[in-house]
Amino acid sequence: MNKETIIKDMTEAVKKVKDTNPMAGSITNSVTINLVANTQIATGGSAAMVYLPDEGEFLAKAGGATYINMGTLLPIYEETLPRTVEALKDAQKPWVLDPVAIGIGQFRTDMLKLFKDYKPTIIKGNASEVIALAGLWELEGGTGESQVRGVDSTNQVDEAKAAAVSLAQWTGGAVIVSGATDLVTDGSVVAESTGGSHFLGKITGGGCALGGAAAVYLTSSSPFIAALTAVSAFNVSGQRAEEKVDAPASFQTEFLNELYKASPEDIAANPFEVKGVN
Amino acid sequence: MNKETIIKDMTEAVKKVKDTNPMAGSITNSVTINLVANTQIATGGSAAMVYLPDEGEFLAKAGGATYINMGTLLPIYEETLPRTVEALKDAQKPWVLDPVAIGIGQFRTDMLKLFKDYKPTIIKGNASEVIALAGLWELEGGTGESQVRGVDSTNQVDEAKAAAVSLAQWTGGAVIVSGATDLVTDGSVVAESTGGSHFLGKITGGGCALGGAAAVYLTSSSPFIAALTAVSAFNVSGQRAEEKVDAPASFQTEFLNELYKASPEDIAANPFEVKGVN
Amino acid sequence: MNKETIIKDMTEAVKKVKDTNPMAGSITNSVTINLVANTQIATGGSAAMVYLPDEGEFLAKAGGATYINMGTLLPIYEETLPRTVEALKDAQKPWVLDPVAIGIGQFRTDMLKLFKDYKPTIIKGNASEVIALAGLWELEGGTGESQVRGVDSTNQVDEAKAAAVSLAQWTGGAVIVSGATDLVTDGSVVAESTGGSHFLGKITGGGCALGGAAAVYLTSSSPFIAALTAVSAFNVSGQRAEEKVDAPASFQTEFLNELYKASPEDIAANPFEVKGVN
Repeated sequence: MNKETIIKDMTEAVKKVKDTNPMAGSITNSVTINLVANTQIATGGSAAMVYLPDEGEFLAKAGGATYINMGTLLPIYEETLPRTVEALKDAQKPWVLDPVAIGIGQFRTDMLKLFKDYKPTIIKGNASEVIALAGLWELEGGTGESQVRGVDSTNQVDEAKAAAVSLAQWTGGAVIVSGATDLVTDGSVVAESTGGSHFLGKITGGGCALGGAAAVYLTSSSPFIAALTAVSAFNVSGQRAEEKVDAPASFQTEFLNELYKASPEDIAANPFEVKGVN
Repeated sequence: MNKETIIKDMTEAVKKVKDTNPMAGSITNSVTINLVANTQIATGGSAAMVYLPDEGEFLAKAGGATYINMGTLLPIYEETLPRTVEALKDAQKPWVLDPVAIGIGQFRTDMLKLFKDYKPTIIKGNASEVIALAGLWELEGGTGESQVRGVDSTNQVDEAKAAAVSLAQWTGGAVIVSGATDLVTDGSVVAESTGGSHFLGKITGGGCALGGAAAVYLTSSSPFIAALTAVSAFNVSGQRAEEKVDAPASFQTEFLNELYKASPEDIAANPFEVKGVN
Repeated sequence: MNKETIIKDMTEAVKKVKDTNPMAGSITNSVTINLVANTQIATGGSAAMVYLPDEGEFLAKAGGATYINMGTLLPIYEETLPRTVEALKDAQKPWVLDPVAIGIGQFRTDMLKLFKDYKPTIIKGNASEVIALAGLWELEGGTGESQVRGVDSTNQVDEAKAAAVSLAQWTGGAVIVSGATDLVTDGSVVAESTGGSHFLGKITGGGCALGGAAAVYLTSSSPFIAALTAVSAFNVSGQRAEEKVDAPASFQTEFLNELYKASPEDIAANPFEVKGVN
């Protein structure tokens, strides 16, 4: 996998999404559910959100990929989440796990443990969440309790690198660690993507939106390419939006605008570096 | 019903809403619940959203009309939805049904079947949803499984005309089929309204917002006038908003702004044609 | 407590929030949950929303303060709300109660009655809600059924003064009555704060956002100062936003922008008057 191939694959992934309007269903938190849907639509995909077990199963089978975000869990998820991941496994459909709020509440912990065997195709978190998930799954690089505070420096993303790699090696998919520099790994290479905006941390849901976008691209490319494409799309759109605004609410509007306007070539041209994992 | 009378009635409906700030309660999905509320407020109405059975009953009785949207169903709706439509019937209060996601999940199907006997005052859907609902209710023009994909052409709205008419004849109310050209029928005449913006399909919740607005106007006019007024308000506001923007997130902001600013005369002057159903 | 001290305390409260990024957890309605989170982040705080009982307990202990808003109640709240207020009491952590929709549904009434003994640190409502809560708690100034309609005039806020004072005397905390002029009392003095914008009443969630902001400031100051700081922040930001826009959707964006940009000195300089309660 050299940079040239990656750029070509990313260009094609974005094109395919814009051409085919693929559906990526979501089970996601109510705080940012609207932003996730609008983000997915802005990329060229289409969105559908559900709570009930048979609806989760339906979307798992009908959608090109599914986004599962662990925020604002509801009681019915005791049925919905296990049945949805089982349906994803049966249908061999890819999915994105966003382990937001990992460590809060017994049910979230139980579900995240369960998901280990269902091997989410893409895992997306900040440094703290990725380290905590690796810890929960007893993989290298993880700790029982994450010591990382915030995700604002490259350094902190680096601290999660070992956890990200071991998670990707376990799932056979890709892992995104979001931060000032974003890290994407498939367990054998690590890409670092730059750009974005500090304003993405000054609105709620920047991370959820990234997970939702990754699910859309995952309908149309490999896990690593989908993950890097989502990160690149956010970095180019975030950077462009920041140039137009001086405060977070306007940023959110401009960010979605720029995401909608970004061409396949714009997204694939966002700067990144690729290295081996060692 | 000639055009002149319709225009006069629409003008009065908008005026009455702006003067009296009527409350239209909603049971609606969590993806677009904020947009529905802000849309209802922008028209001049007031919004209230609930999940619990006795609260649904309360709003049914206390509100001028109720909006029931079938997205993101919750387990408690097994009690809330039947009790709310029963309360609406008892109180002889009008309501708007939005059969979004029809065909996904058993509970949604069961509820939509149940609603047949409760005769929603306005039914609002895209071509696909309207055809599917007519099919579920075994009315003319419906099919068990809708073949329509998307709602982007006049043609597709036309394909739903027979279903819309038979639904309106069954309920004695009105039906909206949203699309590039919107169709409104009371079962005896069909109005076609133009305008709007392609950006309404590039944000989540354009359709839900239309249903919520229809419920507000339904507090203050007949089903057909309320339905056509909501469609006209969206068409004029959508068109004005589109002139100011080049991307969907800014469009959403400007659309709500224009909806708020549109006068009764602006809304009633939006182009439409009326024909008999045959 | 003279004006000079209050201004100094407010300045420090805002500074502390901006410096320490305190977490204020919420159990809040799904209509405006995104706006509440973005408001809390704009003030400099951080947000977390939950539904489940052990997650409510977790946030009660882990957060600096908690915001409980009674909109869109869910069945699980029968466990979540009592356990969360118990955890708040055990941990001696402050919290904000927003009795929105008081009077609708039996469960809301039961919970609001229960909360009397848990003495919310700040109560925030419009005139109608404050009078109704004082009535429910059988305190002076309350009535079983509030006669106040709307909150658009100073006069109506004045009508809720006796209720606000008796609520604050009962809880030992502070009460906010929002309106054209906002009233804040700790039971011994009453502050009246002016500014804001009529557009805050033309979007959904202005009141919820104010409650969420009060919870953030409550992590870093006394109840009275936190309440007055939140009100002042909203009044200065609302006024500045209104100067830039002519419609409500743009207002919401600019309001959040201005809230983010307002300095501690800007907020503390917003006009207010303090009087004794008699």
